[in-house]
Amino acid sequence: MKKRFLMTPGPSPVPSFVRESLSQEIMHHRTSEFQDILKETHEGLKQVFCTDNPVLIFSSSGTGAMEAAVGNLFSSGDKVIAVNGGKFGERWTEIAKSFSLEVVEMHVEWGASPSSEELKSILNSNKGVKGVLTTLCETSTATVYDIEGISKITKENGVLLVVDAISGLGQDVLLPDAWGVDAVVSGSQKGFMLPPGLSFISLNNKAQEAVKNSNLPKYYFDLNKALKSYQKNDTPFTPAVSLIVGLQEAVKAINKEGMESRWSNFKKMSLATQEGIKALGLKVFSKRPSASVTAALCPEDIKSSDLVKKLRKEYGLSIAGGQGNLKDRIFRIAHMGWINEQDLIACFSLLEKVFKDLGYKFKLGSSVARIEEVLYD
Amino acid sequence: MKKRFLMTPGPSPVPSFVRESLSQEIMHHRTSEFQDILKETHEGLKQVFCTDNPVLIFSSSGTGAMEAAVGNLFSSGDKVIAVNGGKFGERWTEIAKSFSLEVVEMHVEWGASPSSEELKSILNSNKGVKGVLTTLCETSTATVYDIEGISKITKENGVLLVVDAISGLGQDVLLPDAWGVDAVVSGSQKGFMLPPGLSFISLNNKAQEAVKNSNLPKYYFDLNKALKSYQKNDTPFTPAVSLIVGLQEAVKAINKEGMESRWSNFKKMSLATQEGIKALGLKVFSKRPSASVTAALCPEDIKSSDLVKKLRKEYGLSIAGGQGNLKDRIFRIAHMGWINEQDLIACFSLLEKVFKDLGYKFKLGSSVARIEEVLYD
Repeated sequence: MKKRFLMTPGPSPVPSFVRESLSQEIMHHRTSEFQDILKETHEGLKQVFCTDNPVLIFSSSGTGAMEAAVGNLFSSGDKVIAVNGGKFGERWTEIAKSFSLEVVEMHVEWGASPSSEELKSILNSNKGVKGVLTTLCETSTATVYDIEGISKITKENGVLLVVDAISGLGQDVLLPDAWGVDAVVSGSQKGFMLPPGLSFISLNNKAQEAVKNSNLPKYYFDLNKALKSYQKNDTPFTPAVSLIVGLQEAVKAINKEGMESRWSNFKKMSLATQEGIKALGLKVFSKRPSASVTAALCPEDIKSSDLVKKLRKEYGLSIAGGQGNLKDRIFRIAHMGWINEQDLIACFSLLEKVFKDLGYKFKLGSSVARIEEVLYD
Repeated sequence: MKKRFLMTPGPSPVPSFVRESLSQEIMHHRTSEFQDILKETHEGLKQVFCTDNPVLIFSSSGTGAMEAAVGNLFSSGDKVIAVNGGKFGERWTEIAKSFSLEVVEMHVEWGASPSSEELKSILNSNKGVKGVLTTLCETSTATVYDIEGISKITKENGVLLVVDAISGLGQDVLLPDAWGVDAVVSGSQKGFMLPPGLSFISLNNKAQEAVKNSNLPKYYFDLNKALKSYQKNDTPFTPAVSLIVGLQEAVKAINKEGMESRWSNFKKMSLATQEGIKALGLKVFSKRPSASVTAALCPEDIKSSDLVKKLRKEYGLSIAGGQGNLKDRIFRIAHMGWINEQDLIACFSLLEKVFKDLGYKFKLGSSVARIEEVLYD
């Protein structure tokens, strides 16, 4: 028997009080009982998103909400800048191209954060750009982008800013209203402590105006329909009732703790993870590490995919390897949602055990000791 | 305290053995453990769909899979016939128009089944039709369409036949391979005994060929991507893990009982429901009643919306009212998924109580007695 131990950047663990709510008897979605749940959840989601704007819920993975953003904020042939510094930036490019937008890619070195100055100059040399598509936490490189800096540029230039906060929301600070982010996308299976299956999008007034003018084909992800239903605490199509009942519980718990408190806890866990990695003689991969997930370069003679497999197979621990060019080079440890400080200690303890088995030289106990210093001192 | 008593055509009740599986600890989706679940579920779904073709799973409501069919089987400007005899036929028209298809609507009287002869003549007088979009059980009128008859016409004419079996699958007989249905769409919250949140689409070879040639914009519902992932028992995007774990259990249970047996049970429940309605002095609305749901005309001086509200508010029983023009005229009782014969008896018992309270004249006990005769004799 092995405990299932999840330290991946989505799905991340779901607390038992949420899991239990998922197994409740199903209720009909066109009832005042369910409308009350949606109403409370809509209000709660605003707090989690740090916005006064509506946050719409879709039954889909996070990618569905990314498609909703592209398909509803722009029109055929519109020019957008997609910030591509990892797998999820790449996804923005792919979606935008699928919907016949003209995509100017802003390539960012993997592990780095996009420079606002460079974005400014790209905007200057490309007339008629309608929007910028970027990422809060680029999960594939465990890098948090400077959305505050980016939003200054997009505001100055009057272009829409759309942020994929699927893995970052809840851990990495994001203040859409204060900074001027027009649309924020997220998903249920990371900071929200839920199983995958729900996605979210918040839209400010400027974004809601853009929705009215978009001519791209859409039906399931039609934000005009979704906004209309939202006003009545309803959904255009049958919602994933059980997941929304779970969402109500999760959002309540998150808001009881408060976003500020959660941000500072995850920031601390992120710092502790970075220090734990260094204590093992390894390097943190990202130049601007996220508070949601940390990436480390694997020792040169060990493939990170082997490390990941061995941890899962022998100990039930799931961490993430690298994606794309980083496949065998990095491993990634999440600190998001329901993952806590002691999970981090246990994860590094197993990491030490498996590194030892793989013949990597380091002082046993060094990473957990260092992490305790950061967390408990 | 009131028991929550669900007799609506989706969401329909979820058995406890499925609900309990939903509350399991979450697992990562890129693991052999989850791949094994997907593999078994993919095989099981083929049995439920009565097909040898792949059945793809999406995280979305059933409407998402309808969009997947339209967006992947056709190209811009393609001519399709949408069979519109109720709210869900209407939805085919709306989706196809959203994706810039040329839609020839075949209007069918609400409550009637489309005539194959009429379809034939519409096909003859419209050159270049690429596909026919229709419904197995038109939920809004509780009518089952003659898909076998329709498929003969579409096969003869070499056009694609796409069937929305969202509410019908599991109760109304559908033999896609034997009849020549090219694509079948369904959803989790009806015959599958699951919460809403998953949708399905099966594609035969002809449909898979069409997918390769479609030029419509898509990303989340891209069937090329989904088919590729399917071969590896994987999904293009993070799947709704907990719902798929539930699906594995539900599909296993359905196949243990067998489709033939389930079809005949629901057929019998449908007949019993019709007889119960007649025993109350009321009329069955549909000319071709579905095995999934039955619609009855409400007594003239009672609005069915009042009946529905009173049943829910005072007794916790959810049945469905009418939609569109039928809003206050009909009420609908589901017999699908996890609803059994005794649920039907209990439902009619409450119906009698409320009809009595509303001053409608009939002999108390008459419907439940008649239903018992049909079911137990």
